Amino acid sequence: MRVELIAVTPFPLVKQGDDIGSLILDALESMGISLEEDDAVVVASTIVSKAEGTFIDLTTVTPSERARTLSSTTGKDPRLCEAILRASKRILKVGPGPIIAETHHGFICASAGIDTSNVAGNNDIVCTLPEDPDRSARTIRATLEETFDTRVAVIVSDTQGRPFRIGALGVSVGLSGIDPVWRYKGEKDLYGYTLNASVIARADEVAAAADLVMGQSNEGIPVVIVRGARYRRSDDPATTYIRDVQNDLFR
Amino acid sequence: MRVELIAVTPFPLVKQGDDIGSLILDALESMGISLEEDDAVVVASTIVSKAEGTFIDLTTVTPSERARTLSSTTGKDPRLCEAILRASKRILKVGPGPIIAETHHGFICASAGIDTSNVAGNNDIVCTLPEDPDRSARTIRATLEETFDTRVAVIVSDTQGRPFRIGALGVSVGLSGIDPVWRYKGEKDLYGYTLNASVIARADEVAAAADLVMGQSNEGIPVVIVRGARYRRSDDPATTYIRDVQNDLFR
Repeated sequence: MRVELIAVTPFPLVKQGDDIGSLILDALESMGISLEEDDAVVVASTIVSKAEGTFIDLTTVTPSERARTLSSTTGKDPRLCEAILRASKRILKVGPGPIIAETHHGFICASAGIDTSNVAGNNDIVCTLPEDPDRSARTIRATLEETFDTRVAVIVSDTQGRPFRIGALGVSVGLSGIDPVWRYKGEKDLYGYTLNASVIARADEVAAAADLVMGQSNEGIPVVIVRGARYRRSDDPATTYIRDVQNDLFR
Repeated sequence: MRVELIAVTPFPLVKQGDDIGSLILDALESMGISLEEDDAVVVASTIVSKAEGTFIDLTTVTPSERARTLSSTTGKDPRLCEAILRASKRILKVGPGPIIAETHHGFICASAGIDTSNVAGNNDIVCTLPEDPDRSARTIRATLEETFDTRVAVIVSDTQGRPFRIGALGVSVGLSGIDPVWRYKGEKDLYGYTLNASVIARADEVAAAADLVMGQSNEGIPVVIVRGARYRRSDDPATTYIRDVQNDLFR
């Protein structure tokens, strides 16, 4: 069994109003490759945000009192703190650096997913997560499936940190066509022992794998095809992943 | 750019005393493939534990008072609770099901990394993480490098859950030859903006990617070659990843 991670490159710089699905089609055409059944196409959330115009120009943001307090605790720009507050349902933890927030989608991540790099070459322009990353994934998937006349999955990914372990890695924030988890309940292990609750974060594993190809600086590889990975088909949203407060030991 | 994830298969059932490096060599020979420079070889911790004999026979374990209390809170076998206590420096959180512990290595994970599946076809035999997974990785790497006369990296991986998001995924618990993180500090982004602190969990991304091939039930694929992934060479141990208590917002 082999899985291939294929960089979709060269990929143009994305501008507001661009159609990501069409850009992917153009890039694949120039590479001379087609999508195959059950390919998973991982798209960096940054380019989706750019295409959808979810920028914030910090020069237009007036920080609230609460944002100023957050700024003095964290050392972050008070206008950025205000943008984080606006993108959040609630703030979970504030450290000397990071602000861990629950976004309006329900994701728990640093800075409510607001990104300051690879946005516009201008420190005053920051980028929020797409408004509805599942919808973005569905739209891209429809374009790809129509063209290639085959069934694929689309994952909108973001690079996020996590508790306990240093370092960020790719996770899925928008999904279409892939079950975020793979439940092994009832399957047998090597010795015939019946697994009673093995739940694997399959879509996040695909996103983490794609990150190996994407890079984080000026590599300019925002789209990766993951070919050959086993996953279950589903239209569950990416937030299926998020533990509810009652079942979360860490908030 | 392409990254390939190659299952090393068929792989025999591992027994105590087996030399994992030699088993990998045999399997690669039967597949007719060689390792190439900078291949990362991901090895499931379960087979390392089996080879090193880090089993616990629960029928020989007498639960302490504390283990009995943990058992009544979590519903877990009191003997398993005792094994978890013995494998732990401290218990961090106890829920209706999970016990989140800090292992003697310093990893923070459910059940102190003790595994009940794919061990021996016997519910009384459980498996702890290897005593020193970095050392295990170094030993395997030495065997592989000597045979193929090229430089590779070895990652001992475990499938672990995490806070906030449902589902477990591959993480690295033992490393040899790969820097657990990739620091982008000082590199430029697409627009020339200098990244000031992008730290990517590269070895964990490799482990998560390998999990796409390994599976969790009776697939029997405990070794995966990750070919073409960019990483930095290093001999930092896997615990480089673990945040110290002072810098951890979640404990």
